Amino acid sequence: MFKKICIIGCGLIGSSILRAANNKKLSQIVSVYDKSNEVLRFLKNQKLTDYATDDIKIAVKNSELTIISSPLSAYKEIISKIKNDFNENSILTDTGSVKRIVNKIIEESNLKNVSWIASHPIAGTEESGPASGFADLFQNRWNIICPSKNAKKSHVKILEKFWKTLGSNTKIMSFDEHDKILSLTSHLPHAIAYNIVRTSLGSDQRVRDEVIKYSAGGLRDFTRIASSDPLMWRDIFIDNSENIIEILNQFSENIEKFKGLIKQKKGEELFKIFESTKKVRKAIIDEGQDIDKPDFGRKKIK
Amino acid sequence: MFKKICIIGCGLIGSSILRAANNKKLSQIVSVYDKSNEVLRFLKNQKLTDYATDDIKIAVKNSELTIISSPLSAYKEIISKIKNDFNENSILTDTGSVKRIVNKIIEESNLKNVSWIASHPIAGTEESGPASGFADLFQNRWNIICPSKNAKKSHVKILEKFWKTLGSNTKIMSFDEHDKILSLTSHLPHAIAYNIVRTSLGSDQRVRDEVIKYSAGGLRDFTRIASSDPLMWRDIFIDNSENIIEILNQFSENIEKFKGLIKQKKGEELFKIFESTKKVRKAIIDEGQDIDKPDFGRKKIK
Repeated sequence: MFKKICIIGCGLIGSSILRAANNKKLSQIVSVYDKSNEVLRFLKNQKLTDYATDDIKIAVKNSELTIISSPLSAYKEIISKIKNDFNENSILTDTGSVKRIVNKIIEESNLKNVSWIASHPIAGTEESGPASGFADLFQNRWNIICPSKNAKKSHVKILEKFWKTLGSNTKIMSFDEHDKILSLTSHLPHAIAYNIVRTSLGSDQRVRDEVIKYSAGGLRDFTRIASSDPLMWRDIFIDNSENIIEILNQFSENIEKFKGLIKQKKGEELFKIFESTKKVRKAIIDEGQDIDKPDFGRKKIK
Repeated sequence: MFKKICIIGCGLIGSSILRAANNKKLSQIVSVYDKSNEVLRFLKNQKLTDYATDDIKIAVKNSELTIISSPLSAYKEIISKIKNDFNENSILTDTGSVKRIVNKIIEESNLKNVSWIASHPIAGTEESGPASGFADLFQNRWNIICPSKNAKKSHVKILEKFWKTLGSNTKIMSFDEHDKILSLTSHLPHAIAYNIVRTSLGSDQRVRDEVIKYSAGGLRDFTRIASSDPLMWRDIFIDNSENIIEILNQFSENIEKFKGLIKQKKGEELFKIFESTKKVRKAIIDEGQDIDKPDFGRKKIK
């Protein structure tokens, strides 16, 4: 499919692309740039690529498809280093969780003859780093594609085909629409998870120990999301803060109403709320977005 | 271990006790009362007990251990019906998620010669009903035991042994302490899950469809908890409303601070919060309260 692909930043997502591209033989060469020597050593030891380098210009040279999979806060520096090194008529994409600000950075760098088309694979786990990646990560997952105004239509098609070959379904959205939808499906839940874990744990050491012990009552579900990569999430919350604050405000309004209902013992209204959210789970399973087993199919512990 | 056990209310929890008691041969007779004929038919068809009845007085008669596993809102009626039918020197327990109010109901009924000792198995799934129960449900789970002031110590020991035989670890707590800890580990997360699902879904049908489609970004985790039994949770929120409102207030304060941090782009402080919650996940896994696999060990969908 390609002569050369370049992956910039090789953590959970970048290394999963690398593994999947290798398995599917999607490119003669897959070069990888990472600023961490440890990551580069890992890739060499695992024989995942012969083209791992800490020279970003060499990594990008002659690449037909360049994929930025670094934290969002590194984009500006990355783009400024390679903006004159892109192959003519090549595709630039990324895998970041926020799009409007990223698009602004890339538009301001005035790339010539490059089709900038953002991607966002809705895939991942709470782990991070290249050892946690796996080739199947994108299988049966959605990938949201946001073409910039200068992107060639033929390049959008190629990028869609790339993700489909990795097993994903693709959906075209605008940068703004992406950031709005993701603030609902991902950024709000993460914001809440971080804060609920903090709130439940509190500061009293004796209470903390008890809370951890009895966390199987519900809290443990939230701790999974609240253990996601801190650097990645710092960047997401800062870069999509407007949408996130807006939805957090709506959430707080709902919480205030809910407090009123339990204070006034409004059983019927509470029941209606809980019945309506029960239906959502079913819809998500029907859409193939989660497994149809109680407790996420968790196996017994110990 | 017993000549007769009686289970009042046979849903997920009651039927799991029944199955486990059968497997471990814990009692010569396990009688079951349920107000639903459908449930009674299910128990007979599955040959789970020969003593399923809609006559609660017959169910309780001569029982050495009576276990209320009904919704909290049914306790008052149940106790008023059977308060004169308990076997002398027998044990009364329950499996409810709130304790202070339950204890008040039972103290006010002035039971004679019965040791009232509350139990709370920290076990369950988002499902409900007798078909969703299974004998292993209590294996390696905690069970919080709250003895009333009139409970015989020897009876507390027997009840602890009962739960241990079902595979659980037991921990003695006061009624108030139980309600406080569970408001942190279970009731707060459920309150938040119900509200986050409502908030994310909003009211616009087009947005709802998109949110469901891309829910794998984090939201789907919350929908599991928000699909728990509506009746059970209505009762919990009403019966433990004071503790829950208190912790919801603390949670809202944390959310307000968090909004300030992302608005002011305080990256370092955000990073510190996320790093600290990451450690909690590890502590929970180390305590044997969740499985040590990314994504709860979820298998691939479809």
